[in-house]
Amino acid sequence: MPTSKKKAAPKKTAALKAKKTEPIILVTNDDGVTAPGIRNLVEAVRGLGKVVVVAPDKPQSGMGHAITIGQPLRLSPVNIYEGIEAYQCTGTPVDCVKLAVDKVLHRKPDICVSGINHGANHSINVIYSGTMSAAVEAAIESIPSIGFSLLDYSIEADFSAARDYARRITEMVLTTKIDKHLVLNVNIPKLPLEEIRGMKICRQAYAKYEEDFLERKDPHNRMYYWLTGELTNFDKGKDTDVWALENSYVSVVPVQFDLTNYVLKSKLEKSWK
Amino acid sequence: MPTSKKKAAPKKTAALKAKKTEPIILVTNDDGVTAPGIRNLVEAVRGLGKVVVVAPDKPQSGMGHAITIGQPLRLSPVNIYEGIEAYQCTGTPVDCVKLAVDKVLHRKPDICVSGINHGANHSINVIYSGTMSAAVEAAIESIPSIGFSLLDYSIEADFSAARDYARRITEMVLTTKIDKHLVLNVNIPKLPLEEIRGMKICRQAYAKYEEDFLERKDPHNRMYYWLTGELTNFDKGKDTDVWALENSYVSVVPVQFDLTNYVLKSKLEKSWK
Repeated sequence: MPTSKKKAAPKKTAALKAKKTEPIILVTNDDGVTAPGIRNLVEAVRGLGKVVVVAPDKPQSGMGHAITIGQPLRLSPVNIYEGIEAYQCTGTPVDCVKLAVDKVLHRKPDICVSGINHGANHSINVIYSGTMSAAVEAAIESIPSIGFSLLDYSIEADFSAARDYARRITEMVLTTKIDKHLVLNVNIPKLPLEEIRGMKICRQAYAKYEEDFLERKDPHNRMYYWLTGELTNFDKGKDTDVWALENSYVSVVPVQFDLTNYVLKSKLEKSWK
Repeated sequence: MPTSKKKAAPKKTAALKAKKTEPIILVTNDDGVTAPGIRNLVEAVRGLGKVVVVAPDKPQSGMGHAITIGQPLRLSPVNIYEGIEAYQCTGTPVDCVKLAVDKVLHRKPDICVSGINHGANHSINVIYSGTMSAAVEAAIESIPSIGFSLLDYSIEADFSAARDYARRITEMVLTTKIDKHLVLNVNIPKLPLEEIRGMKICRQAYAKYEEDFLERKDPHNRMYYWLTGELTNFDKGKDTDVWALENSYVSVVPVQFDLTNYVLKSKLEKSWK
């Protein structure tokens, strides 16, 4: 399914012009519309359907599931991907998904892919990650979605293995239609494709950041703090994403947005009555 | 356990001066340090231990689990609660919890209470809510925590019933020590105390916002969008928080930060192999 190659400025209605059988693929991220990671994701899914990009106009890492309530949002077409309709948005990754559905596509896309994030989103990172929150937002809207992250922060990172897995997993989700609320958190190790041992379906490892705010004084002698910290993994399970990545696998964690702790719910129902 | 009544400016070390047996209670919110809701929460828990407030210096509603990576943070003492050590922070609710532990208390508090939020945080709101994300952050740090919300957005809201339940539930958690990762999402209906039928342990209802961005043009004829939307509840279960609140109960949902979807994990392990 080759995409159109015309170079005209993106039109709001272009998404609606997709062939009837062609799935619509919404691409977003949290590193911003010009990041190498999203460019690689666009190339990974190109040809699998009608690709439309709506992504933040600046880095939005660590924005979690933030939405913009107190400010208006802007949306502008950007002509940076050949033959691909793309927009930059002044809001958060979650805002991008909401705006894409309501004001760009005017319908739900068949899938939303987010990333490829520059850096790991395994274990507890899922909760801070704008990349993953965009994917979760799509799933709340009944759009199957996948967040992709490469364990390499470098702007020069080699995305070729990540691109290969992104395409394969996107195709699998498009083909199998497992669940309309499906969200996958996919992390790819920093390895050449031939050294990756395959995919592992995992659970999220219990890890957390040990904070150590850097303390500095400004020129007026007033204190300020920079957030810094080291991730510590407390979870030695061989079924976790951290284990999979350390053992050269691509980790795939299915994610949910029902945050109810059912184990604790049963406990409380007994003990608090 | 009466708290100290001295009016001196808060000192960084005051939290450490708590009596050995006295629990340390960290209070935060997302509506900002001067909101009526947090003032009511401080009054609710006053006397249950050594109370320390670290809250945002401005409204941070809808910030979800955002953290501040690209900016430094400021922390300033505020002398607005009689006899209570309090600080305002330039960051998000999650930043407040991290800074409180690392730079104010220099230890983990015995409990973190967040709120009382002005407006509902039931069902899917839990994922967008700064109030609840602060509580979840505390639980990641092994600090039992509770987020409180009153179903009344008004600045003039009557917090008396909410205050009563906030004190009662905080005491229960302090006394029973059920789980170090405990997070409770407590919503209180907009009713006088005598009309509330009690507490119900619930699960999070499946509800979502139907977005409808308001479209406007600025004086330069450029379009902008305001996020707006109506919450639609798709979940008719009588074990949900929405049902409990509609039936005059205080809803209590235990929340978790392991986002793994275990049902889907099993499914994928079978079908993707």
